[in-house]
Amino acid sequence: MRLRTRVEAIDASAGAVRLSGGTTLPYDVLVIATGSRPMMPGIPGETLDGVFTLKNLSDAIRIKAYIRDRHCRRAVILGAGYIAMEMSESLRRIGLQTTVVYRGTLPAKKWDGEFSKLILEEITQHGVEFIPGMKPVAIEKGREGSLRLLTDGPVIETDLVLMGLGVTPEVELAKSAGCAIGGGTGAVQVDFTQETSREGIWSAGDCCEVFHRVSRRWTSIPLGDIANKQGRIAGINIGGRPARFEGVVGATSFKVFDLEVAACGLGEKEALESGFSPESVLVWGTSTARSMGGPRLGLKLVADRSTGRLLGAQAAGRGGAVRKIDVLSACLWNEADLDGLAYLDLAYAPPFGGAWDLIHIGAQELLRKIVSS
Amino acid sequence: MRLRTRVEAIDASAGAVRLSGGTTLPYDVLVIATGSRPMMPGIPGETLDGVFTLKNLSDAIRIKAYIRDRHCRRAVILGAGYIAMEMSESLRRIGLQTTVVYRGTLPAKKWDGEFSKLILEEITQHGVEFIPGMKPVAIEKGREGSLRLLTDGPVIETDLVLMGLGVTPEVELAKSAGCAIGGGTGAVQVDFTQETSREGIWSAGDCCEVFHRVSRRWTSIPLGDIANKQGRIAGINIGGRPARFEGVVGATSFKVFDLEVAACGLGEKEALESGFSPESVLVWGTSTARSMGGPRLGLKLVADRSTGRLLGAQAAGRGGAVRKIDVLSACLWNEADLDGLAYLDLAYAPPFGGAWDLIHIGAQELLRKIVSS
Repeated sequence: MRLRTRVEAIDASAGAVRLSGGTTLPYDVLVIATGSRPMMPGIPGETLDGVFTLKNLSDAIRIKAYIRDRHCRRAVILGAGYIAMEMSESLRRIGLQTTVVYRGTLPAKKWDGEFSKLILEEITQHGVEFIPGMKPVAIEKGREGSLRLLTDGPVIETDLVLMGLGVTPEVELAKSAGCAIGGGTGAVQVDFTQETSREGIWSAGDCCEVFHRVSRRWTSIPLGDIANKQGRIAGINIGGRPARFEGVVGATSFKVFDLEVAACGLGEKEALESGFSPESVLVWGTSTARSMGGPRLGLKLVADRSTGRLLGAQAAGRGGAVRKIDVLSACLWNEADLDGLAYLDLAYAPPFGGAWDLIHIGAQELLRKIVSS
Repeated sequence: MRLRTRVEAIDASAGAVRLSGGTTLPYDVLVIATGSRPMMPGIPGETLDGVFTLKNLSDAIRIKAYIRDRHCRRAVILGAGYIAMEMSESLRRIGLQTTVVYRGTLPAKKWDGEFSKLILEEITQHGVEFIPGMKPVAIEKGREGSLRLLTDGPVIETDLVLMGLGVTPEVELAKSAGCAIGGGTGAVQVDFTQETSREGIWSAGDCCEVFHRVSRRWTSIPLGDIANKQGRIAGINIGGRPARFEGVVGATSFKVFDLEVAACGLGEKEALESGFSPESVLVWGTSTARSMGGPRLGLKLVADRSTGRLLGAQAAGRGGAVRKIDVLSACLWNEADLDGLAYLDLAYAPPFGGAWDLIHIGAQELLRKIVSS
């Protein structure tokens, strides 16, 4: 098949896909793995040379070439999620003057404000400029190949504008096949075998929904590890052996400069929306035993007031945050409650934490808070 | 009460302890927290000046003073467990010529031979001499304050001999009180509230047994985090609120130079002894995504052939080992099986591992091994 052939539509009743050349390709089994596409601000000039999305390997290659060929010195990133944070690190590492422009107040808004402040500290310490509360209005060509980002505040002169505004499921082909799309998520609905609402059509990756084991709802979480798992489960089923994808607990992490940031489960707002009565605690410690003077580590736990069940967790610090969240993800997976967490057996040694781990301390503090409330 | 008063015995029927001065001290509630004492080789000269145990803070203070005052240059450690390994690092860090003398073949024998070899590599790379298959026979005074360690092989000249031979529960007082002692463990038997077989007498720490949630047996594991938990549970119960210590899964870790070593649950031998049909796999990966070139990390998983239940795990590498074992400890705590582990949701990001975590890879490989056998 010729390179650059595109699938125009899927005719599920005929069991065929229609290609861009006009030919059709019959199928017995079809997998829709169309992924997601980057969100755009919808402003004039967003397709100008020097404006890039942050999605694919080809984006990375084009950005690197552009920076090299045009001798770029300044970059603006729109958005302040984890991709924007990681990108700010990459740009600083190659010496670019880097500005993050964000409509909201603090970066990584999924995380508690305390942790977002840590992230802000980390990027600004490394020379990233962070401009909150600013809305982009248009991008214009500037002098000598530069760009001008017009905002609801001042104009920002730059060489490069990067879109870090998140992604949205790519579901046009699935729609053309008549596959059901989730109302809240905009992603392709699948069952636990990854089959869509149309028999014989399967889906995996950012384009489809995933079952959240804590909220018990189908949701959209565009992450590579989930996509891998879904693809494998779809493949096993298509190959004739039954397999179920038991879902996720919303575990996620990123690194920005020397800071580890991670979370799993539900935040308080999501917990409320899912019918729980959340109570939370945020505790600070170190990633080693205190006597060893390790870096500061913060852990937030969210649990259900009426059952004591763990609902979610967040952590941030220069080391140790992902470890805590991985443990708590395993606990969420198994529907653990705070009583178990308060005395959970972990691989204690002073270089890796205190005899009372931050998880124990947080769980015990949260238990006291729930009992006394 | 006078300093250095010792408890000579406990008269449980009278509800009193007999002190060294001859006086008795009545009690309503008694806690036996006598800990453990270091094992000695039982050879002539083991109490000479310059021979030290590795148990308490006072040992550390005395060793440091001795090294400083006597200008020690050479040290021998007997034993090759995790305390011996940690001690070898401490001695190298202050510049001593350090020799580990061990009866067996490889250090840290609790771990798989592959991991023991990594440990051996790590210590020898850092200048520690490791002499396997050698039995100490006696310690003699040498010239100018030095010591001579006589073995079943050559004589070793040294300035310092350190006993890293493990510990044994200190149960003499508990015996005098008539508390039941575990036959296999030699430790004080307790129930889930930490009460001993004698009503009103409680115990916590290295001196008493602990319930192993995987083997479902009472065992002896002298670790500081367990002691802390037991003490707290005993205290809550004594204070009048019921609390149970739900036991441990055998999670443990240590760091030697740049190597992290950790384990949880049962090894194959222990699993067999506990009535399981163990099958195991050892997989190698990196502690970051492969593309990021992180250090090598090994993970061993042990599961029950008939049920697919996880029974134990071990890991070693320059980073990431404790994180894996902490996650797997939480899984063991919740009696997870390999099916769950193979698709467990973890906080994936390339700086912290691959989209398929070593835990997923190990679990899937072990599942295939069990199915095909």
